[in-house]
Amino acid sequence: MAPVHNFNAGPAVLPQAVLAQAQAELLDYQGRGMSILEMSHRSAEYEAINTSAENRFKTLLGLDAADQVLFMQGGASTQFALIPLNFLPAGATADYIVTGAWGLKAVEEARRIGQVHVAADTADANYRSLPDSLALTPGAAYCHLTTNETIQGVQWPTLPALGDTPLIADMSSDILSRPIDAVRYALIYAGAQKNIGPAGVTVVIVQQGFLDHADTRIPAIFRYATFAKNHSLYNTPPVFAVYLLELVLGWITDLGGLEAMSVRNTAKADLIYAAIDRSGGFYHGHAAAPARSLMNITFRLPEPALEKQFVAAAEADGMVGLAGHRSVGGIRASIYNALEPAACAELAAFMDEFARRNG
Amino acid sequence: MAPVHNFNAGPAVLPQAVLAQAQAELLDYQGRGMSILEMSHRSAEYEAINTSAENRFKTLLGLDAADQVLFMQGGASTQFALIPLNFLPAGATADYIVTGAWGLKAVEEARRIGQVHVAADTADANYRSLPDSLALTPGAAYCHLTTNETIQGVQWPTLPALGDTPLIADMSSDILSRPIDAVRYALIYAGAQKNIGPAGVTVVIVQQGFLDHADTRIPAIFRYATFAKNHSLYNTPPVFAVYLLELVLGWITDLGGLEAMSVRNTAKADLIYAAIDRSGGFYHGHAAAPARSLMNITFRLPEPALEKQFVAAAEADGMVGLAGHRSVGGIRASIYNALEPAACAELAAFMDEFARRNG
Repeated sequence: MAPVHNFNAGPAVLPQAVLAQAQAELLDYQGRGMSILEMSHRSAEYEAINTSAENRFKTLLGLDAADQVLFMQGGASTQFALIPLNFLPAGATADYIVTGAWGLKAVEEARRIGQVHVAADTADANYRSLPDSLALTPGAAYCHLTTNETIQGVQWPTLPALGDTPLIADMSSDILSRPIDAVRYALIYAGAQKNIGPAGVTVVIVQQGFLDHADTRIPAIFRYATFAKNHSLYNTPPVFAVYLLELVLGWITDLGGLEAMSVRNTAKADLIYAAIDRSGGFYHGHAAAPARSLMNITFRLPEPALEKQFVAAAEADGMVGLAGHRSVGGIRASIYNALEPAACAELAAFMDEFARRNG
Repeated sequence: MAPVHNFNAGPAVLPQAVLAQAQAELLDYQGRGMSILEMSHRSAEYEAINTSAENRFKTLLGLDAADQVLFMQGGASTQFALIPLNFLPAGATADYIVTGAWGLKAVEEARRIGQVHVAADTADANYRSLPDSLALTPGAAYCHLTTNETIQGVQWPTLPALGDTPLIADMSSDILSRPIDAVRYALIYAGAQKNIGPAGVTVVIVQQGFLDHADTRIPAIFRYATFAKNHSLYNTPPVFAVYLLELVLGWITDLGGLEAMSVRNTAKADLIYAAIDRSGGFYHGHAAAPARSLMNITFRLPEPALEKQFVAAAEADGMVGLAGHRSVGGIRASIYNALEPAACAELAAFMDEFARRNG
């Protein structure tokens, strides 16, 4: 079948050029007579991939040489537990800013480990907007936020003022989608399966100075320091996922890096938000305008039955993955880095036509 | 380049038929117009893969319907920590039987979490043999052993008597290589990257009755019960790794299941052990005869310099991955399920010739 336009929320669309390369060399990696899937993680070939992936992150994000780039497993959900295990000692408090479902999950896991203070929670606003103010704890061990809430489609356009508290950010659904001021983050983490690769690898970027404060009494496999010391080769890494990730980082680099991604993603999002805004209320965006996500565009139609029709008709037109998260319903268009602008243009045209026929 | 004979210890050789299928459908999975790498883990297609992989395990191992088959991340090294977190409450003791490097690592992680008793440790015998006796703790929370030690090449041919204590086994390097009496194991775990798939997925098989005793206060992502309740779909699974795993399980099934694997693997190992035994001492097997592994065949040559020559000459003949683990040196031939018998025959002939020239 011809390639579809893939609006899946994650795992999500990957660059066609990356998939084509992976296919071409799947049985024989670099003339070695075996698949990358069969190759030792101690081989020179894999070490080159691992090092290149680290370096590409450092270049793309403008990281310091002393920053650590780690490739881990278990997704952001595992990070929810590892962060307080490493960085929330007894007697200390961690601040959490909750702007959607994933931030809430992060809080719930942290509560099983240490003392947590919710510095803001926009649940009363149905997670449509960003908090007006933050009740920060002086001297908190860290402050955690979610830069983009995938389910609600709410994104911080810029960082709030947080004082001197080390900032930890879940960037699972917007990492490498735009430039960031990396120096402001003590730790960044992201499951790869949205903007930067397939499911099965989680990227963690941590400042060495912050890492020096981590607990050393927890099991070795839970310590970020173990991964840092061993360049993510303490135990067997998810070789194929890191291999694809490295190819995706190369693709981002070749397209011009994060400035180019930001231009591309903003233009894509504008196409769809414009279709919402010109629909005369037929489409109702979930996020308040200042909190609109450039990655996950969430909206409702007048009736749930119409939403089902919308999803089915779009799929018939080759646009898949548009149903909202099962916990909230509605429509969600996830338009990560790899999604081509043409897909967003087609969706916007489809939205106009669907509104005209059903409005 | 023509396919080599791949004796890597893990990640390791995969069935060529599985790789060919993965390559053929990498850009368009089942006519859906997208790669399996781009497909939601909530899609009907992935749920079918997930369910089939669970069911294939149950059939191949003869599991009870009530046994849980879980697909997790982080490798056996993560299990070393999760097992005591779930099953070693304060005040209880867990027994560990140590027959090599991996069992020792499991003990070290467990000690960070609870009270551990080493019921046997063959370190004094340089991990060449299995223990003569076990100093078991009456009423232990569980007893942990490693069925096959990948680095030393030492395998339990049959299980020792362990009384009523729940048995937990690390089967990372021999799972599905031979039939087992599954009812004897409270919990089995294995990184996939040796016998059953690529790196990036870890299989856990746990009896429901044992799972009912697990700690419910630890973070949700660390609880086996979370994975059991959600059929391993609590958070995003490593989709591609489970997809390949399911294909490998189909390949094992088509070849006749675990009885056929056992016949195949025993014949393969016999070829190489025979070459050791007929070399007149030129090759010196590491493992004592009753503990010889059918998966990892470890041996020394008279001089380290000769071992380097051996590895290089074998590689020139298209046989790769024969260097022993960096911690012990020597030679290691890993001959997992997917390695073809012809590879072992070629290696045995090479060994004869190398001994003749250099002995």
